[in-house]
Amino acid sequence: MKRQPHFLDSFFNPASIAVVGASRNPLKISHNLLANLIKLQFAGRVYPINPGVPDLMGLKAYPNLQAVEDEIDLVICGVPATSALDVIKDCVEKRVKSVVVVAGGFSEAGQDGKKLQTEIARLLKENGIRAIGPNSLSPINSRYNLAIGFSPHEILTQGGASFIFQSGLYEPRLNWLLLNFHLGINKLIDLGNKMDVNEVEALEYLGDDPETKVIAMHLESVEGDGRAFFQTLKEISRRKPVVVLKSGRTPAAAKAASSHTGVIARGSDAVFDSALRQAGAIRAQTIEEFFDFAKAFECFTPLKLNGNRIVIAAYPGGEGVITTDECQLHGLSLADVSPETYDKVQTIAPPWTINPNPFDLGVSTQFNGPRKVYKILMEAMTEDDNVDCLAIEIELSAMESPDLILEPFLMAREKKKPLAVWPMESTRQDMTPVEWLESHKIPVYPSGERAVKSLAAVHRYSTNNLQ
Amino acid sequence: MKRQPHFLDSFFNPASIAVVGASRNPLKISHNLLANLIKLQFAGRVYPINPGVPDLMGLKAYPNLQAVEDEIDLVICGVPATSALDVIKDCVEKRVKSVVVVAGGFSEAGQDGKKLQTEIARLLKENGIRAIGPNSLSPINSRYNLAIGFSPHEILTQGGASFIFQSGLYEPRLNWLLLNFHLGINKLIDLGNKMDVNEVEALEYLGDDPETKVIAMHLESVEGDGRAFFQTLKEISRRKPVVVLKSGRTPAAAKAASSHTGVIARGSDAVFDSALRQAGAIRAQTIEEFFDFAKAFECFTPLKLNGNRIVIAAYPGGEGVITTDECQLHGLSLADVSPETYDKVQTIAPPWTINPNPFDLGVSTQFNGPRKVYKILMEAMTEDDNVDCLAIEIELSAMESPDLILEPFLMAREKKKPLAVWPMESTRQDMTPVEWLESHKIPVYPSGERAVKSLAAVHRYSTNNLQ
Repeated sequence: MKRQPHFLDSFFNPASIAVVGASRNPLKISHNLLANLIKLQFAGRVYPINPGVPDLMGLKAYPNLQAVEDEIDLVICGVPATSALDVIKDCVEKRVKSVVVVAGGFSEAGQDGKKLQTEIARLLKENGIRAIGPNSLSPINSRYNLAIGFSPHEILTQGGASFIFQSGLYEPRLNWLLLNFHLGINKLIDLGNKMDVNEVEALEYLGDDPETKVIAMHLESVEGDGRAFFQTLKEISRRKPVVVLKSGRTPAAAKAASSHTGVIARGSDAVFDSALRQAGAIRAQTIEEFFDFAKAFECFTPLKLNGNRIVIAAYPGGEGVITTDECQLHGLSLADVSPETYDKVQTIAPPWTINPNPFDLGVSTQFNGPRKVYKILMEAMTEDDNVDCLAIEIELSAMESPDLILEPFLMAREKKKPLAVWPMESTRQDMTPVEWLESHKIPVYPSGERAVKSLAAVHRYSTNNLQ
Repeated sequence: MKRQPHFLDSFFNPASIAVVGASRNPLKISHNLLANLIKLQFAGRVYPINPGVPDLMGLKAYPNLQAVEDEIDLVICGVPATSALDVIKDCVEKRVKSVVVVAGGFSEAGQDGKKLQTEIARLLKENGIRAIGPNSLSPINSRYNLAIGFSPHEILTQGGASFIFQSGLYEPRLNWLLLNFHLGINKLIDLGNKMDVNEVEALEYLGDDPETKVIAMHLESVEGDGRAFFQTLKEISRRKPVVVLKSGRTPAAAKAASSHTGVIARGSDAVFDSALRQAGAIRAQTIEEFFDFAKAFECFTPLKLNGNRIVIAAYPGGEGVITTDECQLHGLSLADVSPETYDKVQTIAPPWTINPNPFDLGVSTQFNGPRKVYKILMEAMTEDDNVDCLAIEIELSAMESPDLILEPFLMAREKKKPLAVWPMESTRQDMTPVEWLESHKIPVYPSGERAVKSLAAVHRYSTNNLQ
């Protein structure tokens, strides 16, 4: 039986989009609401709405929605708050079913804005129109070359991580996330002031979406008493990981959130935290953790770990010790390797015996070179049943042909043991080794601490949710 | 009264250095023990010791220490462990007073290595020779163009941060720390296996050193019962900040440390932590925090904060909320600005009133441009007596002439209010704005979280130690 189409389908897979209020001026950010669709070669039909001009960026422009003869699946309302009501009235007349309200200046901006938002919400509801926002940049669907945003986009890399935001936290860093951090994005929805569509609906949709391997959501508040939210979260977490970054944890921040998306965060953070854990979700404490964990799950899902036993290999011995501390503090433990592994590792030791874990890459590569060391280390560790996952440092400056030297790292994927890598900070700007690793779904992090915390999150999810 | 010269003076300010065992082969890391001194134009006299060649890198080479007619202030013993004893015997004969033993393979490498280290230590002690190491790369003194290390150096940037290490943690990332992280280094000592010189002596020396504004030390273990260490720490912390990164916090890591520098960490981490706090030292939990805090103190020492009231300004509103959480969690609190500041800030608001703190740079620059926004924001906030420090995000892509746009940031220095900056992650690689800020001693961090944690460390030090 085919599943009933979800109302959010028309947001993520619209056959036609009308963009109201896109500026001709490339210096204005609203220019990119339309320009991105064109540059990305969005697969559907696009209708610019602008009463002042005959065409816009090479497309025929229409004075209003009614002038478009085609059916419009999705309207992007890009006009300022004060003009938004008129656009919504046009949507009613044109029998549009789905709208994104981009502008800010509503419930987050005092009494007048609140009143306006309430009026628009009422009109939408009376006419059965579903709306994302206001104060929202949405949606993104990389498989469909669809991105609504203020930042210029020329490429959307594809992947299995889908995102729910309550603010534009991701927006100015999106190009960086895609091109430098190598995050494989599938879908993205920014709920904004949540006048209509909320986090529970978004979660349900992505939970059922076969293209979404991991959901990462940033929340400032939860609808009502949160019961529906935590129930949905629990149900989905059994099938796929959900990473949650909840801000407004402290009273000062909660107050700040309300003046920003106009929504009030309720309840103590400790209660929220415990409910998250019971639901099997993975909490991120910082923006860094949020994207770090999403990247790890995107690379490793679906994967069930046998245990929490990790191998650490770092360049300076002292860094191996510090990274070991990080492991223990985040629920991983140093693997006690087999006698066979111990013996194999001695063949890449300096002229004295060496501790296999944490493994000192500095002293071993000094005597044996990185190529031999990585090969024997990876063979020994991935074949050892006492090892569940690995975190390895690489030295960018030592690597002339990354695929030749790093090829042994692929053994970790073959043996289904999550491997996270971090490069020693370097003045060298050539990121070829990092790109090579990430193209093979081996996630790279800026530090050992972040690599280990991400592996710990994968282990936590595996233990709590996978039988 | 002139102070008695400290024995460590001959390590940091030697008039003559002999380097034993530097390789001619530029591919061998021991090559750089000598090459760095030459490239950096070390101000003292340098004598390469190598029995096989008449000259080395343009300098006359000597078959042994005795063949050098000059007095030798410092011997860098760069030969493998097995040959080190012979070099020490030569040091005795030549009446050398100071030696660094570079090689590993001693107490960290099993019984034979331990025995060798004990024998060398005894010989040194009998002859009144002070020694750093073994398993040590030391020292660095940027004012003297002196750097002993395996990594190639062509430049040492100068500053007021001095470091004590117990391992080569810093070594492979040193160029990055200087050139990309813009850390102003003064002196550095790597204690290695601590056969002789220990952390208390190093701490005393840097505590009395007028060029050292902040001391940052990485420890895996503390001598004996730690009484002398904590007493020295307390005494120095009253005069200058001491940042401590102690690894081997967990039992697994403590064990790993002992197989790496051959020194055993004793006692529980909680006890250590509480003793650190009582001594007024600032603990770093990770490698990132260690260098982050050192950079903050290098920029802001000496500076007494009036309180913990911070202003946050971030691009996406959601990031301001998250950064507010970070502040509260680390002991800072959001400044409640004056009515005058509130009014000034409204002149850079969008067409609705805006919350002054955390300040939403995204929406305000969208309507007013970054130049005007920064100027009015900085004027208002630095003149407000309710504000003690600031953390501000910048957007690299928006900045064509950094000095023009960022000049208002200098007001924070004038008004003696610590300001830390973080750039939005960006695909843009041009770091000119970051370099401009850091050349004016405004520290830049990779994230809001790290900026805020560094300011919190400065506040913690100020509250605990400065009257």
